[in-house]
This record gives sequence, structure tokens and C-alpha cells, in this order.
Amino acid sequence: MADGLSTFVLKYSNSMNYKSFSNQEIVDMDNRYRIQLINSIGGFKSICLIGTQNDEGQNNLGIFNSVFHIGSAPALYGFCCRPADRERHTLENIMETGVYTMNQVDESFYKQAHQASAKYPRELSEFDQVGLTPQFEHDIKAPFVQEAKIKFALELEDDLLLSNKNTLVIGKVVHVLVREDLIDEKGYIDLAAANTITGSGCDAYYTTDTLGRMPYARPENTDKK
Amino acid sequence: MADGLSTFVLKYSNSMNYKSFSNQEIVDMDNRYRIQLINSIGGFKSICLIGTQNDEGQNNLGIFNSVFHIGSAPALYGFCCRPADRERHTLENIMETGVYTMNQVDESFYKQAHQASAKYPRELSEFDQVGLTPQFEHDIKAPFVQEAKIKFALELEDDLLLSNKNTLVIGKVVHVLVREDLIDEKGYIDLAAANTITGSGCDAYYTTDTLGRMPYARPENTDKK
Repeated sequence: MADGLSTFVLKYSNSMNYKSFSNQEIVDMDNRYRIQLINSIGGFKSICLIGTQNDEGQNNLGIFNSVFHIGSAPALYGFCCRPADRERHTLENIMETGVYTMNQVDESFYKQAHQASAKYPRELSEFDQVGLTPQFEHDIKAPFVQEAKIKFALELEDDLLLSNKNTLVIGKVVHVLVREDLIDEKGYIDLAAANTITGSGCDAYYTTDTLGRMPYARPENTDKK
Repeated sequence: MADGLSTFVLKYSNSMNYKSFSNQEIVDMDNRYRIQLINSIGGFKSICLIGTQNDEGQNNLGIFNSVFHIGSAPALYGFCCRPADRERHTLENIMETGVYTMNQVDESFYKQAHQASAKYPRELSEFDQVGLTPQFEHDIKAPFVQEAKIKFALELEDDLLLSNKNTLVIGKVVHVLVREDLIDEKGYIDLAAANTITGSGCDAYYTTDTLGRMPYARPENTDKK
């Protein structure tokens, strides 16, 4: 890393000007500008389709970009749902049945996945509307996305109401399906080979290229490179 | 999307075999395999360096991959901290001072960023140890990473103890710094142009290429493509 080019890049970047937004400027700025800005500053996001079913067997599919890993033993994942002051089919279904699926979105169906963010009436299934296929496995009462190469089912573990009236949904992973050519003998899944996409802001999608895997970091590794 | 190649890819992918892991198999599997598997299934992650300072002015820098956007008005971000049953300098400093920074990691310093995950003693600053530069701005009592092109400061809003003894830290964004060539007139920041990296699993890093930005989805856009 400490080669001439990288050193130049760092020095060059430090000499560039920065836009600076204070707390008051953030509060006062145009709403659409703030949405773009605040959604972009946290870096890249997981893009997952969450599949649910209500007690009447109506399927639902929603796209979410706030999925995050909490722990592996027990295996827990969280995601954030917007305020329940209007219809939130995904959240309502999870509260009804306690079960949901998360499905990685890849390049081959990202446009259909994005279309699942449209506000369809409750009685329509986004699977039908956007052209994806519900898949039921192992008596789990929530649909997987058949087209997804990496997907898992969760059982509701906790729901926490946050200060901005969003709900943080925490689930325990109860079943995992991974296309067998994508997982190695140590459990590592190659998301670049899967063509899994990532997102930023509210509406931008990206493919990835592998930079590398890093060894477990220890203090004695330090060489200030 | 519904061209011949994509249809072929979907059909081909559906015919591939899947590895299937039940709840009991997840519980019983080798610990290192489970860590890799569970960390990989949720898709790509934000990679952020979190900068803090304790009351004595000692700087600390940690790398986190669970940063997620909660809302833009108020502007809130969350991240997950592992159990406080051992020294967790980032969490302890945030509890002491109530202030922290998040800094996007780009390709030019991702190895230094990864090295910040090593367990250094409390009295050493990871900035010094890995070769990054603390930057203080606007009387904020936490260091930014000078090398980062996109960075923001937060004030602690809430801390929630989760069922696995992790702490979910929620902060309000109080200052944003973005290199001015990376943000457009609508507030959108081009993370691919910034060379911001993304991560998966515990140790894999990736650069990205833009696929595209999608229009706001409405039910009537549907053409099942």
C-alpha cells in the first residue's frame, strides 16, 4: 500500500475541498437532498428481498437495505422497518406468523427486486407483480425467492420500537440455502461469484470485484504500511 | 432483463443444487464454519472506521461492518457492538463522551483499516499503530479519519442491550464531511467514484462498479420484465 501511487493518492485526496454540513444545516436542508445525503454517508448496503405470508396464505415480498449481522451463535440478523403508522405488509406479516425469509439479490433480477418497493395493495403478491417465483421449503410458512442463490429463513426473536418510530426486527436464522458451487469447505460464500449486488443511497445498485481476503489482524502484524 | 441470456441464467441457476442447513445443523456445526456461513448470508456490508476519544483524550479507532441507516429526519445511524464482557474501547468511549465518527473506508487504505481490528492495548492509538491520521473539526470530541473522503460525526441517541448481549448503538448525525467532487447537486454521493469498499463474511473486501440508479417504483411501472 505504501507505494508511490498510493501515497500520491492520499496526499491528493487530502488537498481536495470538502463540503461540510452542520447539524443545523442538515435539519434545515431540502428534504429530498437530506434523504440522498444521509442515505449515502454510511457506505454500501446489503440488498435483501424479505418474503412473508399472512395467516390467510397471501404472499408478500419487500426489498430492504438495512439488513445487518448481529451474531453467529445464536445466529441473529436485524433489519429496520419504517413507522407502522401506515400499512407495512412485511412487518404485519412477521408479527402475525413470526417467520420470514431473506434472499440475496443478484444482477440477473435486481430490476424485479427494485420493483418490489412499489406500494402494491395488500391483496396482490409482489412475486406475481414483479415476476419472481415463491418457493416453499421444509414447512417454513414464508416464501423464499426461488431465483436467489443465497437465502435463509428466520424466526422473530425480538422487535424494538426506536425513537423515530421505526421498528428494529431481530430474527434467529433457522434454515439456510446456498447454491453449492458458491460455498467452500470452510463455510465462506463468494458473493462476487454469486453476482450479489450491493446498494447505496436510495436507488443505486452495484456489482463488485474481489479486492482480497485479509488474515486475522494481530497487534504484531503492524508495519504501518 | 427478460432477454434470452437472462432467462437462460435463471433457468440454469434454478437447476443447480443447494446446500441446505437446518436449525439443528447450524447449532451443531463447527464454530469457525458457522461464523463464516452466518456472516456471509446477509449480503454485502458497510465497512466503517469508528473514531472515538476517552475523557483523557486518548484516541481510538475500530473497524465495524454492521453500520445501518435508520432514518434521515432525524438523521440516525445504528451499529452493533459485541458483548461488553471484555474491553470494548469504542463502546466505552462512546458511553463516556457521547460522541463518535464514522468514516468510509476506500481502496487506498483498506489494509490499514483492517489492521485496526487487532486488539491493541487501551493506551495505544490505532491511528498511530496502523498509520492513519486523526483529524479534529468543529469542536467535535472524536477524531475523524483524515484519509476518508466521506465521514460524519454522531451523538449517542440510544443504546439497546440485545438478547445475545451485544449492544445496539444508535446515534444522531451532527456533522457531515464529503469531498466536494463526490456529491452532486441533489445530495447523491457516488460511492463507486469514491472507491469506497464493501465487505462480506468476516474478512473479504470488494470494490464496486455501478449497475445503475433506478426510478422510484410505482405499481403501474410493472411489466414483469
